[in-house]
Amino acid sequence: MTSAVSGLPFDDIRALLAEMPTADMEAVAAVRARDAVLTKPAGSLGRLEEIAEWLAAWQGRALPRVDRPLVAIFAGNHGVVTHGVSAFPAEVTRQMVDNFAAGGAAINQICQANGLGLKVYDLALDLPTGDITVEAALDEKTCAATMAFGMEALAGGVDLLCIGEMGIGNTTIAAAVHQALFGGSAEDWVGPGTGLDDPGLARKREAVTTAIARHAGHLSNPLEVLRRLGGREIAAMAGAIIAARHNRVPVIVDGYVATSAAAIVHRLDPHGLDHCLFGHVSAEPAHRRALDRMGKTALLDLGMRLGEGSGAALAAGIVKTAAALHAGMATFDQAGVATKG
Amino acid sequence: MTSAVSGLPFDDIRALLAEMPTADMEAVAAVRARDAVLTKPAGSLGRLEEIAEWLAAWQGRALPRVDRPLVAIFAGNHGVVTHGVSAFPAEVTRQMVDNFAAGGAAINQICQANGLGLKVYDLALDLPTGDITVEAALDEKTCAATMAFGMEALAGGVDLLCIGEMGIGNTTIAAAVHQALFGGSAEDWVGPGTGLDDPGLARKREAVTTAIARHAGHLSNPLEVLRRLGGREIAAMAGAIIAARHNRVPVIVDGYVATSAAAIVHRLDPHGLDHCLFGHVSAEPAHRRALDRMGKTALLDLGMRLGEGSGAALAAGIVKTAAALHAGMATFDQAGVATKG
Repeated sequence: MTSAVSGLPFDDIRALLAEMPTADMEAVAAVRARDAVLTKPAGSLGRLEEIAEWLAAWQGRALPRVDRPLVAIFAGNHGVVTHGVSAFPAEVTRQMVDNFAAGGAAINQICQANGLGLKVYDLALDLPTGDITVEAALDEKTCAATMAFGMEALAGGVDLLCIGEMGIGNTTIAAAVHQALFGGSAEDWVGPGTGLDDPGLARKREAVTTAIARHAGHLSNPLEVLRRLGGREIAAMAGAIIAARHNRVPVIVDGYVATSAAAIVHRLDPHGLDHCLFGHVSAEPAHRRALDRMGKTALLDLGMRLGEGSGAALAAGIVKTAAALHAGMATFDQAGVATKG
Repeated sequence: MTSAVSGLPFDDIRALLAEMPTADMEAVAAVRARDAVLTKPAGSLGRLEEIAEWLAAWQGRALPRVDRPLVAIFAGNHGVVTHGVSAFPAEVTRQMVDNFAAGGAAINQICQANGLGLKVYDLALDLPTGDITVEAALDEKTCAATMAFGMEALAGGVDLLCIGEMGIGNTTIAAAVHQALFGGSAEDWVGPGTGLDDPGLARKREAVTTAIARHAGHLSNPLEVLRRLGGREIAAMAGAIIAARHNRVPVIVDGYVATSAAAIVHRLDPHGLDHCLFGHVSAEPAHRRALDRMGKTALLDLGMRLGEGSGAALAAGIVKTAAALHAGMATFDQAGVATKG
């Protein structure tokens, strides 16, 4: 998979998008047929039934399973932090990566409680991206190579992928990406992130407004939006989403920053996210707006705004349960239960 | 606990309500103090942080734990089913109890996937309650004894209790209880349940309207509402909620029918549900209305409408994760992570 993107950078990404697998409708039909005879009123498991169909559609198997779920966290640093756009100092990105390795972060506990694997990808933390208010975040070769690196998350036989991130300053980056893709003003897309005060919020809005103005005229191509306004973790997550599609692995997208990576793919192809579920809607106010623009409804709404894959991982627990329900329930015949009169 | 209610039936229930334990605010303060130094932005786990506080408040311990979660399902039958108010025949109550025992129902899979214990209480299934359109569902002694029986769910050291039910016809019963407690008309409280067609819905509304008229003048006392319009599983769930409070066990309430039991307790004392979390909002349309009347916000909104504790059990997975997060995360000092600048 990754070798496919070592040549002409963005052309090969486009080639992958042009040949995306589609939903396996035979598998979906099998799930619907089985669901109809399970010992419960038709439709009574609501969204859990839809999840079983979605898993089948993208795993391409009549009896979907979640045996090897993985949370992949991509970490990057950002030149824009020099503008005072985050409540935390930039060294916290590295410190939190160390915390993930030591098992002390929120995502470690969520993974342990829900039986999920965890891999953390450290993306050149000592080389922050370019300051988007004055230059492009990445050159084209680096951007495409980082997307290819993100595709590595699919190695090892994962059957459900949760994507998350860590990167001080990256809600500023995500806001710029969303504004470039969906329009509107910085006020629409900038929020408090990890807990900015009002002067910090003003600086963050100013940085996004300046960045959009700086790159105006070059933002009609979503891959150029990614390269100019994005970051390494955004590029890697976009790559992981595309690779997951090709590997028939359903994806759960985390919060506001992960959604900006998904939004790049969505603008490249409106069906490019059909294999993705949005795990939760974040308390970061613009997350709901971004989901609305793509016509997506998140699974959970718990006021979380942590990132690091936490909302996706929590949703993965429910997705695992949905798969277990479909596979494990008895049919009316098996259980000797009378059907609807 | 149960012996306390063997004398003057409802008087002893009232005595239990008069001496309910209150929230342990020292434990809550300890949770808040620890939460403030865990390696995450303050407040970024949203409702999961509130859940940790709620567990501490009602378990009465500074570091809340969920080691012995239990789903208790109470099953009962109802005289009102002779009016054609359910899409399924009455024998399905017993058949589903057998299905629970065999491990084939939805709740079995949810419990297994989320590490929850399961107990099923069969409440005199061969003795349906009185037809509420012409008589009281239960006499006072039977009603109080059934509440006492429900208290048995607290035996064995459970530290988180999910309450659910099974009973063909019991969304009709729940609608009558809700109307009696909250006012309005049958249109406000009657929904399709397991999947009624329009003629069935009309019969169901008619049954509820007739029952409310039949018992008019006797519905100002919530325990009389329970006795006249309720059912064995509703009485048992109300008893379990009260006993859980006395045993300092937090409760997760399931859907529309379980909520009618909670509503009885709420009308007896508006603080009587402070130890309860509503696991989900059901697709049964009036469930949201009932929650609104009590000022409660459910944790999940997944379009489920199955009963048998399924929504509460799914929420229990998230509550377990919330406890694991609070207990397991490293502090800023432990992890060497810089705090907010």
